[in-house]
Amino acid sequence: MAEPFDAVDVIIAKRDRRELTDPEIDWVIDAYTRGAVAEEQMSALAMAIVLNGMSRREIASWTEAMIASGQRMDFAALPKVTVDKHSTGGVGDKITLPLAPLVASFGLAVPQLSGRGLGHTGGTLDKLESIKGWRADLTNAELMRQLAAAGAVVCAAGPGLAPADRKLYALRDVTGTVESIPLIASSIMSKKIAEGAAHLVLDVKCGSGAFMKDQARAEELAGVMVELGADAGVDTRALVTDMSTPLGRTVGNALEVREAVEVLAGGGPADVVELTLALAREMLAAGGLPDADPAAALAGGQAMDAWRSMIAAQGGDPAAPLPAARHSETLLAPESGVLTRLDALAVGIAAWRLGAGRARQGEPVQPGAGIELHAQLGDRVTKGQPLLTLWTDAPDRFPRAQAALTPAPTAAAPPPIQITQPPSAPRPPLILTRLPPTEPE
Amino acid sequence: MAEPFDAVDVIIAKRDRRELTDPEIDWVIDAYTRGAVAEEQMSALAMAIVLNGMSRREIASWTEAMIASGQRMDFAALPKVTVDKHSTGGVGDKITLPLAPLVASFGLAVPQLSGRGLGHTGGTLDKLESIKGWRADLTNAELMRQLAAAGAVVCAAGPGLAPADRKLYALRDVTGTVESIPLIASSIMSKKIAEGAAHLVLDVKCGSGAFMKDQARAEELAGVMVELGADAGVDTRALVTDMSTPLGRTVGNALEVREAVEVLAGGGPADVVELTLALAREMLAAGGLPDADPAAALAGGQAMDAWRSMIAAQGGDPAAPLPAARHSETLLAPESGVLTRLDALAVGIAAWRLGAGRARQGEPVQPGAGIELHAQLGDRVTKGQPLLTLWTDAPDRFPRAQAALTPAPTAAAPPPIQITQPPSAPRPPLILTRLPPTEPE
Repeated sequence: MAEPFDAVDVIIAKRDRRELTDPEIDWVIDAYTRGAVAEEQMSALAMAIVLNGMSRREIASWTEAMIASGQRMDFAALPKVTVDKHSTGGVGDKITLPLAPLVASFGLAVPQLSGRGLGHTGGTLDKLESIKGWRADLTNAELMRQLAAAGAVVCAAGPGLAPADRKLYALRDVTGTVESIPLIASSIMSKKIAEGAAHLVLDVKCGSGAFMKDQARAEELAGVMVELGADAGVDTRALVTDMSTPLGRTVGNALEVREAVEVLAGGGPADVVELTLALAREMLAAGGLPDADPAAALAGGQAMDAWRSMIAAQGGDPAAPLPAARHSETLLAPESGVLTRLDALAVGIAAWRLGAGRARQGEPVQPGAGIELHAQLGDRVTKGQPLLTLWTDAPDRFPRAQAALTPAPTAAAPPPIQITQPPSAPRPPLILTRLPPTEPE
Repeated sequence: MAEPFDAVDVIIAKRDRRELTDPEIDWVIDAYTRGAVAEEQMSALAMAIVLNGMSRREIASWTEAMIASGQRMDFAALPKVTVDKHSTGGVGDKITLPLAPLVASFGLAVPQLSGRGLGHTGGTLDKLESIKGWRADLTNAELMRQLAAAGAVVCAAGPGLAPADRKLYALRDVTGTVESIPLIASSIMSKKIAEGAAHLVLDVKCGSGAFMKDQARAEELAGVMVELGADAGVDTRALVTDMSTPLGRTVGNALEVREAVEVLAGGGPADVVELTLALAREMLAAGGLPDADPAAALAGGQAMDAWRSMIAAQGGDPAAPLPAARHSETLLAPESGVLTRLDALAVGIAAWRLGAGRARQGEPVQPGAGIELHAQLGDRVTKGQPLLTLWTDAPDRFPRAQAALTPAPTAAAPPPIQITQPPSAPRPPLILTRLPPTEPE
């Protein structure tokens, strides 16, 4: 056989805590993409990586090998500075929708190559597809024209970017090998670096609704990704932000678009505005505009103009009414007090079960399904007031969705929703850490 | 879906160092055998087991689940006590050949359900197939008749015994998940317990030619297997024996049969005789004959009579000349002194490359290929005397076989063969540890 390495030797090296060499990493990623390393071999290697970790050099080489498995976008011909943003995914995280046009309104190009949702976190494409006429698939030429004209684009990432990651991600999903900082960081950064923007701002979520449940792990993931960006020549910075409770007052596709439009109109929930502005400031600073005032662009309507251009350029009608679900049920506050717990994961799972998300790739989602929150964490509530409303086209889904919001009879964990009478109940900070760009190694 | 568990949850439990429950273990083995747990899921679980281990209860349940995946032999109708022996595999390990008829000559039934060789360790069936007419495949009825009459049987294990282990072993072989005491112990013991003998003696090899390279690990493996036997109601004991140098003076199929016949005739190399007698004493004691004298049965010809009956019962001609390879090359001692190193792995690989073993399942082996050792570890040698002779039908194999016996130019390890002038050079002990049966948990 003509292969320079044996898959079993590479697996055993990582199993026995030896560092993989660059040629070994290049080969195993390439051979896996070609099918010369079998799925059961890659899953054993992935589990060894989950349990034994990788060095910074190994992670960088693994990321480069995944980029090399496909094409790399090139925006050099574009007469604008390109700034990309990526969120690791959360519940009610519609920030891309107001953020991309807001930053584009300052003359920067914001290419947002996005995916669809799977499980309890929503996908940006699913959200925008609730707008009449809007289409996610663009050719490269269309993408370039729209970046030059409207400045902001949200579209589907083509299958040619980091195909090794696409294959590996599907494998990790069914083999219990998702939760690994080296594998998560290299998966995200291989796609982001292949997408070719000069600057990148990461929003690393932390809390029950996120991959990373605790702040130290979220900061570690953010640090690894900032370093990977620097090593690949992409100016990268990160915010670590709270995902213990949903962002904003809506979870679900059309519901989130409605809230994004509220923010673009100068209103919207304070937390969504706060995070949109914080990320916009990072992107503007990265793009050479540290003194730009994004709050003024929301108040002055420039961001809304950019939104309308962006939606219209992809066939969408920004003025069309958004779809609504046909059935709703509203839960009332069982007592008066302060809402001290509103668990992101529980709300995300409930919205997913209502039809806002999909259990398997390729399934349709309901555009109108989801949850409206009438109170957010830290709000005072009165007994009997509406706490949240569930929306779906399929009312048989209500019981399982409500079950996600109700404590299990035997659970030791705190209930998903809790109202207490604390002397004072400040909401915890939304933005936990800021990681500035680092020097390449 | 009707499955009671999700494979990903079971993988994550072991990945996160939680003990698997009995229902989880029963399900995952059964679902894997049925194909409802995919190969890539089982390999990720196997790697998590390699790295995070299993408790004694988990290993026992895993073993029971593998036994339950197939049939279990039942020797209750046999009017003899059944005693089984298993070796974990070594270089020149032909002990089963003289041992089974020797023990049978005392009236015990010795069913040896064996496999074929893969890689550098030989298979007992491959060795016996160098005898003209001998066939490995018996029906269950033939097996029972032969045990009742001749007492000793060496035959192929049917595919119905522990099919989960058969599938899992093939997977572990290609995914770097062989080297795990829980997985090795459960693999061996699931087959041995399914084979149904009342008593079991294990020969756990230790050294360069064995799975277990160091004595502490070999003793740990032996201890786990003795406990597994006790828990399953099989009276089990073990010897841990040296496999740093080949056993006896021959490595290869017909060459080893010749040596086994020498032992049965009352001669043969001292180490082969020593280990045959030590294992025979354990088997005889287990079978209720602690005072039997196996050395007398070798000297008196009873063991040879039992050998002839055993071979003839399976169509073999014990008097037929054994096949010999057509080409040989002899290596001479480069200096005078004491042979202080003769590495089992190097000799095993050389014999394999000469054609005594196979690289892939199903390949034929050469009956005459192998190595004759003219000196053993600890022997005095004189410059120019024959050290070993390589045999093969394919003389183009000599260079690669010789390379296995020659130090690599850059290797830090000691050379495979070493002659030195020590003041005294006793051969290290062959039998390292004895593990008596334990109480069930």
